[in-house]
Amino acid sequence: MATDPGRVEVLALAGLPEVTEGDDLERMIGDALEATPGALPIEPGDVLVVTQKVVSKAEGAVVDLRTVTPGPEAIEWARQWDRDPRQIQVVLDEAARIVRMERGVLIVETRHGFVCANAGVDASNVGPLSGDLVTLLPRDPDASATRIRAAIRDRFGSDVAVVISDSFGRPWRWGIVDVALGVSGLLPLEDLRGHPDADGRVMRTTVRAVADELASAAELALGKTAGRPVALVRGAQPPAGEGMSRDLVIPPENDLFR
Amino acid sequence: MATDPGRVEVLALAGLPEVTEGDDLERMIGDALEATPGALPIEPGDVLVVTQKVVSKAEGAVVDLRTVTPGPEAIEWARQWDRDPRQIQVVLDEAARIVRMERGVLIVETRHGFVCANAGVDASNVGPLSGDLVTLLPRDPDASATRIRAAIRDRFGSDVAVVISDSFGRPWRWGIVDVALGVSGLLPLEDLRGHPDADGRVMRTTVRAVADELASAAELALGKTAGRPVALVRGAQPPAGEGMSRDLVIPPENDLFR
Repeated sequence: MATDPGRVEVLALAGLPEVTEGDDLERMIGDALEATPGALPIEPGDVLVVTQKVVSKAEGAVVDLRTVTPGPEAIEWARQWDRDPRQIQVVLDEAARIVRMERGVLIVETRHGFVCANAGVDASNVGPLSGDLVTLLPRDPDASATRIRAAIRDRFGSDVAVVISDSFGRPWRWGIVDVALGVSGLLPLEDLRGHPDADGRVMRTTVRAVADELASAAELALGKTAGRPVALVRGAQPPAGEGMSRDLVIPPENDLFR
Repeated sequence: MATDPGRVEVLALAGLPEVTEGDDLERMIGDALEATPGALPIEPGDVLVVTQKVVSKAEGAVVDLRTVTPGPEAIEWARQWDRDPRQIQVVLDEAARIVRMERGVLIVETRHGFVCANAGVDASNVGPLSGDLVTLLPRDPDASATRIRAAIRDRFGSDVAVVISDSFGRPWRWGIVDVALGVSGLLPLEDLRGHPDADGRVMRTTVRAVADELASAAELALGKTAGRPVALVRGAQPPAGEGMSRDLVIPPENDLFR
């Protein structure tokens, strides 16, 4: 993989072993880097995109639904829309605020400030023995990203930016796209306001959500069923800096859709 | 560029000459493919992502603001928010319906069904002599994509999928990401419902918006100021088929945010 201007490469790393609570995810990712031809050495501007599920599992952000007693609201909603009432209760517990709860769709604001369906609570790909397990979003995805970045630097001597990604739906458009939940070692937004465009005109409002585009690009290589949760993105050269995922969140007072 | 599973490459094509109405954009893109090392031959599953601006310019979807007489609503809004009243009038003319018009933000539904800021009307990168020119969205972006695809097939003997992209903002998250306005030769959504996940569990609701992720990946290589409006994405292997961008639009009756 060579770094040329205008060329971005996304490389799905070799698969990780099944991840469970307490596993050394940082070591597993390092091992996957070593097992993937072309991934090493880390190059300046490289970004590791790690999907949320393995982070949540390693951190124990997992709930066994057999321990959950659903309340009346969860029971009624689950009955109406053919869902598991225990899982609905977990969603309600994870929600800082409900944004929409209608027509079978439950969109909430999480404690991180993200607005997403089901508070990011997810039952898919939790593990082979996991009929009753769901994952939550990591408590502090920026901290998760920072830990992975530090471990890679310690092991390989190179700084790499890290994005923790998850799949979110959007208003108005069908389908999910991967976006950034946590970042370390990059600025998630690239602010081009005040820069001239190709014709020399000053652009008024262009702020690129680079971290979200990195997450989406990674998803193209990772797919949804291949058991490969980490991708290396080379050549995108995101803006360097110490940003945080909160930078991506429109605060309620600026948001027309909460 | 080699096609390996789990490897996606995004290659910004060589820059196009300045595009104006009536230009043979399809020929220009073919020339750019020939001028870009590694782009040819087209490989199965390749996707050309063409940013909206050059399509609109070639098709004459451009308005000279000197010909626009703003009405009272546009004048009042422009005065209140320090905008060009003629450009606001163009936005109102392009809108099938206004979704939000408050706090300086004008979000509309276009005739295509897209919900976006300012109806996609844009003044940046319109051309060197263009202080008063704005671009509109192409009238039929799927048709634009199909024309480009047919021209590539005629010239190089290979079928390539085409995505017309534009930069849209999102509720709840700062920054713009590129999404698909038009498609030809792929299905914009990959419906994984009913497929088993990595643990053999049947996924309930996963529909990937592959065309939008292709647009975002392309943007990482193209950036916003480099004057390179076309990227080739290799290795993503989007679902084959004859889809259309309308597949991406949530109809109003299913949409909680209109």
